[in-house]
Amino acid sequence: MFRPEIKVVDCTIRDGGLSNDSHFTLDTVRAVYRAVVEAGVDYVELGYRNSKKMLSTEEFGPWRFCDENHLRDAVEGIDPRDTKISVMMDSHKSDPEDVLPVDDTVVDMIRVATYVKDIDKAINLANVAHERGYESAINIMAISHEGGPELEEALQQIESETNVVSAYIVDSFGSLYSEEVHFLVEKYQMYLKTKEVGVHFHNNQQLAFANTIEGIIKGANFVDGTLFGLGRAAGNCPLEMLLGFLKNPKFNIVPVLEVIGSKIIPLMEEIDWGYHIPYMLTGMLDQHPAEAMRWMKDKNKYDYAEFYKRISVDPEP
Amino acid sequence: MFRPEIKVVDCTIRDGGLSNDSHFTLDTVRAVYRAVVEAGVDYVELGYRNSKKMLSTEEFGPWRFCDENHLRDAVEGIDPRDTKISVMMDSHKSDPEDVLPVDDTVVDMIRVATYVKDIDKAINLANVAHERGYESAINIMAISHEGGPELEEALQQIESETNVVSAYIVDSFGSLYSEEVHFLVEKYQMYLKTKEVGVHFHNNQQLAFANTIEGIIKGANFVDGTLFGLGRAAGNCPLEMLLGFLKNPKFNIVPVLEVIGSKIIPLMEEIDWGYHIPYMLTGMLDQHPAEAMRWMKDKNKYDYAEFYKRISVDPEP
Repeated sequence: MFRPEIKVVDCTIRDGGLSNDSHFTLDTVRAVYRAVVEAGVDYVELGYRNSKKMLSTEEFGPWRFCDENHLRDAVEGIDPRDTKISVMMDSHKSDPEDVLPVDDTVVDMIRVATYVKDIDKAINLANVAHERGYESAINIMAISHEGGPELEEALQQIESETNVVSAYIVDSFGSLYSEEVHFLVEKYQMYLKTKEVGVHFHNNQQLAFANTIEGIIKGANFVDGTLFGLGRAAGNCPLEMLLGFLKNPKFNIVPVLEVIGSKIIPLMEEIDWGYHIPYMLTGMLDQHPAEAMRWMKDKNKYDYAEFYKRISVDPEP
Repeated sequence: MFRPEIKVVDCTIRDGGLSNDSHFTLDTVRAVYRAVVEAGVDYVELGYRNSKKMLSTEEFGPWRFCDENHLRDAVEGIDPRDTKISVMMDSHKSDPEDVLPVDDTVVDMIRVATYVKDIDKAINLANVAHERGYESAINIMAISHEGGPELEEALQQIESETNVVSAYIVDSFGSLYSEEVHFLVEKYQMYLKTKEVGVHFHNNQQLAFANTIEGIIKGANFVDGTLFGLGRAAGNCPLEMLLGFLKNPKFNIVPVLEVIGSKIIPLMEEIDWGYHIPYMLTGMLDQHPAEAMRWMKDKNKYDYAEFYKRISVDPEP
């Protein structure tokens, strides 16, 4: 599949930060940035810029806040080539005050993550970013729980009230199958006449890469991946496979393979992301992975049948 | 997706045996058999019945030959319910003499694995199995290397010269993307007017489950899986996710979850199947995983870039 319009966003440090409270070393962040730039990836997302009034700087590492000095430490001395830098802001955990004028920052794009219920906050934040000179995007999380008219209204608002380059389908629970991906991309396209559709999938059922391909086939032009699928719980669409699938000659997989071997594999000693039955089961049942993440720390973590019984029984009415 | 015609084949012991030379303990084989029966899976494949004249009984364990007494040890005392027993015979490593009359065996189905070039041997073996009272099937391996008229001729022969219940697409290298799966299922259907299409995918690019879904959507009614994806190199389509996707109320996932936790997870101490970059790369390049399996034993196994260079350079002409 070679369609030059397709833009790849590496969000290893941002999404991967959900698995270690954004406590990556500067060395790791610089190595990831350098590799992704050398690979010719279009965007690299180096973290969240969330508000220090709402999240604790003692609990979370620097890549949850992305202070300008930390970002400059991450990229200093590395030729950015054609790769743009993104940060993510959660609509309900961010302060528009933290959006510096674009001339004062290394950031090119701000992506706003939101639930449908917070869409007005998200639109405001995306518009502030646009006014201050950034590319903007809106990522609608937990999309598998959003089937109704609120989603359609949100898409209509994004189309008419913003200048975002892209609005994303975010399968937070890793529960979507291909036919649902097709349905959602078509729904987005119905409302987003002047924006691109983006896709961001989680890997609970080993479908993140497959669903990304399905999104691309239906016309999504912004696609997310992380190195070796690093991410919370089951993780994300592995960037390396995405580059293999996209036959764009500008991509070079070699620096990606190098940094996976040297910097990402060693993280497995502290972070246990990937295919595990509890994450698969919350995906299959379309639930948040929080219960599965707790179960993975239990001494009986291999008693998968017990976990399944717990999460599949309906609560008392 | 609930289509009652869909038949699920568990081939944990058979295909998984490629990762340990079929040296499973009797306890493991019995536990897998019991769980799969209790889960309501349609077929369970307990190994290969290959020829002792062609393969060494010192190198390979009992489940590479499936002597009748070993099979009886595996199933004795367990109510088979509605689950049929299958064994696989390789067209080029088996002897039709080893096909006992069906009344002398616990086996219900014989699946013949073959390359297109050996299709005449495979048809002979499938016909011997049918004459002696078995259900028969033919699995065409390395399908991603078989695009030409030989495949079409083989499908034509299977249709007109055999009584197989199913002919399989086997993606031995884990290289197929969804559009190729669609193309192949349609091609099989064009020739197989009186047989079912089967699908068997490998997981090098985390696409085995996704491709199985795509096969089902296009009409394949025989689908293979293994517990936790156990299999050579990257492994197979995980059976547990397949049961979750197929909404057939006859399936019960609980015994499958139990046996994964108690018997399959412990195998990870000796067998390192699953997603690894070398297996992904041979899948991406549509190559046999043998080179990757050797690389995984190298002391520099995390030097993925070096491995990629080795396998992606064209040999001297």
